[in-house]
Amino acid sequence: MSGFSFSVRATDGPARTGLIRTQRGDIRTPAFMPVGTAGTVKAMFPEDVRATGAEILLGNTYHLMLRPGAERVARLGGLHRFMNWPHPILTDSGGFQVMSLSGLRKLSEEGVAFQSHIDGSSHFLSPERSIEIQCLLGADIQMQLDECPAMPIAHEAARESMRLSARWAARSKRAFAEMSRPGQALFGIVQGANYEDLRHESVDRLIELDFPGYAVGGLAVGEGRAEMFRVLELTTPRMDAGKPRYLMGVGKPADIVGAVARGIDMFDCVAPTRSGRHGQAFTRAGAVNLKNARYAEDETPLDPTLDCPASRDYSKAYLHHLFKAGEYLGPMLLSWHNVAYYQQLMAELRAAIAAGRLGAFIAEFADAADDAQ
Amino acid sequence: MSGFSFSVRATDGPARTGLIRTQRGDIRTPAFMPVGTAGTVKAMFPEDVRATGAEILLGNTYHLMLRPGAERVARLGGLHRFMNWPHPILTDSGGFQVMSLSGLRKLSEEGVAFQSHIDGSSHFLSPERSIEIQCLLGADIQMQLDECPAMPIAHEAARESMRLSARWAARSKRAFAEMSRPGQALFGIVQGANYEDLRHESVDRLIELDFPGYAVGGLAVGEGRAEMFRVLELTTPRMDAGKPRYLMGVGKPADIVGAVARGIDMFDCVAPTRSGRHGQAFTRAGAVNLKNARYAEDETPLDPTLDCPASRDYSKAYLHHLFKAGEYLGPMLLSWHNVAYYQQLMAELRAAIAAGRLGAFIAEFADAADDAQ
Repeated sequence: MSGFSFSVRATDGPARTGLIRTQRGDIRTPAFMPVGTAGTVKAMFPEDVRATGAEILLGNTYHLMLRPGAERVARLGGLHRFMNWPHPILTDSGGFQVMSLSGLRKLSEEGVAFQSHIDGSSHFLSPERSIEIQCLLGADIQMQLDECPAMPIAHEAARESMRLSARWAARSKRAFAEMSRPGQALFGIVQGANYEDLRHESVDRLIELDFPGYAVGGLAVGEGRAEMFRVLELTTPRMDAGKPRYLMGVGKPADIVGAVARGIDMFDCVAPTRSGRHGQAFTRAGAVNLKNARYAEDETPLDPTLDCPASRDYSKAYLHHLFKAGEYLGPMLLSWHNVAYYQQLMAELRAAIAAGRLGAFIAEFADAADDAQ
Repeated sequence: MSGFSFSVRATDGPARTGLIRTQRGDIRTPAFMPVGTAGTVKAMFPEDVRATGAEILLGNTYHLMLRPGAERVARLGGLHRFMNWPHPILTDSGGFQVMSLSGLRKLSEEGVAFQSHIDGSSHFLSPERSIEIQCLLGADIQMQLDECPAMPIAHEAARESMRLSARWAARSKRAFAEMSRPGQALFGIVQGANYEDLRHESVDRLIELDFPGYAVGGLAVGEGRAEMFRVLELTTPRMDAGKPRYLMGVGKPADIVGAVARGIDMFDCVAPTRSGRHGQAFTRAGAVNLKNARYAEDETPLDPTLDCPASRDYSKAYLHHLFKAGEYLGPMLLSWHNVAYYQQLMAELRAAIAAGRLGAFIAEFADAADDAQ
């Protein structure tokens, strides 16, 4: 039985391109994972997600545990079968969304008690229950439960929170060893806010536990791009170069490009689908708001060079009309285009790193983005 | 330049199967036209609509004249290009929806003044303006403006209304002769409520004008299935057997089957897409409401024998979840399935007529529907 593995194919400065192997298929890195919150990448057919080049999806433990419920998904054959996505799936631990979405919460050493945002019902998420849920869902890559505090946060509070996450990492690992199936992998999550000593301590504690992959958590929570890049620069060099590095919840195209340059291999973000539902398209020339009246008679497509029907076969004028009329097809087409744009960006980053020309790629990318501002 | 034509291939009692030829492609009859109200078959990609077997769409003049506007669609290359549907399109006249959707209306010999349901703006639709709009949209098959009164209606009022529609038919034909392009076709619409003498008079007046096709209007407006069938039986035998017969706004599967048996060749209805958006699937065993809790753990797909991913590749449990969670993918999948189901039904009707076994098909169809009640 083939297990989980990661190999770096080429590097360009801190940036790497490589391959994650899983039982359900390979994932070329740097990789972007579209988010399938509630068992669906919103407004997209899974075949179309796949055709954009996506090789792995992210599922949200918080949403799925509440509806339809992890045990139900397990009875129905697991998340892959449930949502008709036979390729790899990574699930988060649920912790971040408990903190950002749920009602009354109470955090303790044991875990976090909270109320569902759907019906107010009471739930408890511990490191062990999070792993149990992720195993019931059948996720190929699972994440430890962690605490993800908002920034700014004082050093002492950040240290206590990071150490709680480290203890939860150890508990998660024990639970995973008991409950997981061969070939599945559990990632630890580096915390420590924007403090170098805490990020280092967090990395060291996790490496001691020896995970097959590590995430950088606690970023993209309002600290700004420059600060995020600064924290990455003082974190990733200390992380195991032989393991995949996943920057959670990131981000806009420029965030991804900058993080890849700083050694990150995996990303997830709702931006392409959420923006798509709200009429915003990501393009090589920057973001485009299709609701703007300037597009009412614009016959050009979003990007005729992208191998995606949504990017190529419909005019901006038509997309403008669909959003004005509140038609389903507007979010459907823009989500599709945006996910295709993100996957194309990842393919270009991989090619640039492999060719040792990431610097030139980034300079060009920044120029185009500046033009659009 | 090939024009518009219709030929009957086979008959089985009053039922016929045949072929409508247009410049943009052939349409096998009996045909069902999915409704693309505002330039989109709601929640479906046009390629998927096509792949179900649909050979022609219906577009709504009322919606398109208000938004994005017929002149704008014309500047953007016409409706086919605008909505990325290169196949035949039929447009209605806008009259029915002015009556059912718009605000303050005033009907006169000249036409109908009304207010937009979108922004309250004032508009006027005459037979000539309706044709002008349909030509701006570039519709392959166009419909005369008519008045479609609600039933029950007194004989005298029905007669006056039918005669107004007949006068509008003559004006529509003159306008069409001036404005249309070669290969396009204009259909007249039979009115006369549920009065035999008025239906006959309406048919005779239209035949005198000599249209390439005729619609039966004023049905499916609340009169019930039995009454609709009765009116069809006293109307279609008087219609030109060499021209296509289109029953406007119909219907549920059983309506279509019964109307085909009474000599109808073309249909349109929002039922498959509207029901799909609301969680209802049409199946061989009757209608299925996916929101019902009984489907929460039902692993079976809607119809594994249908050559449609939406029908085949997703469990009812998953569809149930999508509707419970309010996800876009629920309406997307069910609309797709329902349109595929309708197209499959039409294909079966065509095959049954060609084989002279429509009676057996209908008996079987009625049995299955009974089982589901």
